[in-house]
Amino acid sequence: MSKLRFNITMTLDGYIAGPNQSVENGLGEGGEQLHDWVVKLKFFREMHGDVGGGETGTNDDVLREAFENVGATIMGRNMFGGGPGPWGDERWKGWWGDNPPFHTPVFVLTHHAREPLVMQGGTTFNFVTDGIKSALDQAKQAAAGKDVALGGGAKAAQQYLAAGLIDEMDLHVVPLILGAGERLFDNLAGSDVKIDPVRVIETPDVTHLKYRLVK
Amino acid sequence: MSKLRFNITMTLDGYIAGPNQSVENGLGEGGEQLHDWVVKLKFFREMHGDVGGGETGTNDDVLREAFENVGATIMGRNMFGGGPGPWGDERWKGWWGDNPPFHTPVFVLTHHAREPLVMQGGTTFNFVTDGIKSALDQAKQAAAGKDVALGGGAKAAQQYLAAGLIDEMDLHVVPLILGAGERLFDNLAGSDVKIDPVRVIETPDVTHLKYRLVK
Repeated sequence: MSKLRFNITMTLDGYIAGPNQSVENGLGEGGEQLHDWVVKLKFFREMHGDVGGGETGTNDDVLREAFENVGATIMGRNMFGGGPGPWGDERWKGWWGDNPPFHTPVFVLTHHAREPLVMQGGTTFNFVTDGIKSALDQAKQAAAGKDVALGGGAKAAQQYLAAGLIDEMDLHVVPLILGAGERLFDNLAGSDVKIDPVRVIETPDVTHLKYRLVK
Repeated sequence: MSKLRFNITMTLDGYIAGPNQSVENGLGEGGEQLHDWVVKLKFFREMHGDVGGGETGTNDDVLREAFENVGATIMGRNMFGGGPGPWGDERWKGWWGDNPPFHTPVFVLTHHAREPLVMQGGTTFNFVTDGIKSALDQAKQAAAGKDVALGGGAKAAQQYLAAGLIDEMDLHVVPLILGAGERLFDNLAGSDVKIDPVRVIETPDVTHLKYRLVK
């Protein structure tokens, strides 16, 4: 069975981005610290086309595992960027340059239709305007038996959580207290999300908490 | 050096109580589930004067450690209960009956003065109206070299966190998503709280995350 797997980095106080996100500062003020643990890893560099160097070890293994057996990716418009609102003339192609780190078909949730955008390295951005279930159906079809990765941001994750569509959730909790920004677990009042712990992996930089969603 | 140690149970989405807390339902709607992991433990029963039975093991060890070398306790008015507002005629004596589980002097942060309340088993509730630093000073003096435990609720913890007065923080994270209630990490924008991970202990019921506050 193809699963929907969500993996994201979160501060101890529950933020996945700082306040005042902008084109210049996609993770908001102070938000770049969220990814200090990941940008130095060997697998992160490989995903970004940099074949030399990078740290190996527990965190690298966890990151590698998070992208193993992934055949398609879903993300919200805010994670893709260039918004909000219509796409405009000079069209935003994501934060990641010509060769994005996904290397799979990516389904971007948006209210604004757009032709698919073929990038280098196997990433094609498809823009889905008819909702989260449609995006998941299309992603599962594209994944051809492999799993689907849900990348974020918060609003996309909240919609999939509330709809009971996520199978596994891997939270990389970093020892930061941001105090403001975008919270992962928000807008979930009355949604009755149930979780079972799967495992915990501790490292000095980050604690990995993995949960299975109870259907 | 006497430390201020904060230990509290939190849901994965950051709540330490459910919504609509009341005298009948001190932990709010759904909040009683927060303590499912703790009420069955041997040490919890011992603290509440029940000498027989209870589970031993990792969680019991963690709970026991959280109260080791504690010579005084601080809590907010909301955790003590009977509020908000003046104390009234029929005076609230806390949620815990005649023999509360603290067995130390307790300093309750409040805007409403009141004579100390001597309970059985070594607990005396002292009511502090001149702020968190005064409460900490009084608690440290009462602890006579031992540590001071900060019990909660959220607002008391937030004030001590923002003031940089907490030394250690032990979060018992339970696999629940409440979606609403009282968040631990709120009202901390701009407070510049820095934390270092100390250890993680994983059990099926709860994950214990311990941090040291960086001064």
